[in-house]
Amino acid sequence: MADLYLALLHHPVLDKNGLVVTTAVTNMDIHDIARSARTYGVRAFYVATPVRALQVLAAKIMEHWQTGYGSTYNTTRKDALSLVRLERDLDGIILAMERETGMRPRLVATSARSGPNRTTFAGLRSQLEASPDPYLIVLGTGWGLAPEVTERADVMLEPLRGPSDYNHLSVRSAAAVILDRLRGAGYEGRSSNKSTPAR
Amino acid sequence: MADLYLALLHHPVLDKNGLVVTTAVTNMDIHDIARSARTYGVRAFYVATPVRALQVLAAKIMEHWQTGYGSTYNTTRKDALSLVRLERDLDGIILAMERETGMRPRLVATSARSGPNRTTFAGLRSQLEASPDPYLIVLGTGWGLAPEVTERADVMLEPLRGPSDYNHLSVRSAAAVILDRLRGAGYEGRSSNKSTPAR
Repeated sequence: MADLYLALLHHPVLDKNGLVVTTAVTNMDIHDIARSARTYGVRAFYVATPVRALQVLAAKIMEHWQTGYGSTYNTTRKDALSLVRLERDLDGIILAMERETGMRPRLVATSARSGPNRTTFAGLRSQLEASPDPYLIVLGTGWGLAPEVTERADVMLEPLRGPSDYNHLSVRSAAAVILDRLRGAGYEGRSSNKSTPAR
Repeated sequence: MADLYLALLHHPVLDKNGLVVTTAVTNMDIHDIARSARTYGVRAFYVATPVRALQVLAAKIMEHWQTGYGSTYNTTRKDALSLVRLERDLDGIILAMERETGMRPRLVATSARSGPNRTTFAGLRSQLEASPDPYLIVLGTGWGLAPEVTERADVMLEPLRGPSDYNHLSVRSAAAVILDRLRGAGYEGRSSNKSTPAR
């Protein structure tokens, strides 16, 4: 079973007009996605921004919950945020993963748009079960990943869909659903009777 | 197929010590959960708070996106927020649904805790397919719904689980995953080739 890693890129991503921009780092993105990553067994959650001031902001958020007041106020939050790593960009993430695992990750790009050569969730689950390589799921902020990222991907994942044509989920919600589809227990309708800690 | 409705309660919910409290209404909760509700075909998303000042705040957020600057800046956000209704509490929601649908909804309580008599997601999907009644999925803020709410539920849904014992998802993430498990397309591994609007 392949190890799963997650990346949230703030550059290069698209704005609503399709231009390549850099978005701001959002406190809630880091918290929500770290908690989802921890719940679904992700090995590390990389937050990438090229903006030095936003790297400092992200580091402060993490420090508050790792060693500051938050670490004793809410220990489950500390557990989740211990998965977060700060990097400058996708290349920095890949280098960090190579240093950590000794292997180059397979890149999985995500998009809310349909298009050619999309891999289904069932298809990706099969790949994960058979592969010894680590897999990096790459999420974009703003209006999604720029083509220069998706063009590098080994896997282009199909968009999430409900019963309608509307699929404008927040990146926080999309991250949770993608991880649940790949690693959720009870996903096939199995019932779990293990005891569970409180939320 | 039963119509799905969603409720987010800010009272009565538990705090980290198990006491019944009222939590603050959060802008991000309304936005994220409204977008998930719209994506997964929910008929209405009820936000309940007994605090008058927070009802006014929530109404202002909605007005900004419905008729204010936000309605032209981001039309997909307007679509999502058109599903939001403000109510005082669970009884207010049930009354509103009875007025709207002519039927009393079946109540589905959610919890991150396991316990007796939990209904699996597969079990709830079967109920939804067979039932003519509307179903109201009830989510709690803070550390989850107080017993006085869960005791009234017709269905107590099993907790979301990944591969570990940690399941501290945000209520925003939990809402998205619950809706995806109940109404997601491609959930059984089916591939979709319909065209999709941009996120």
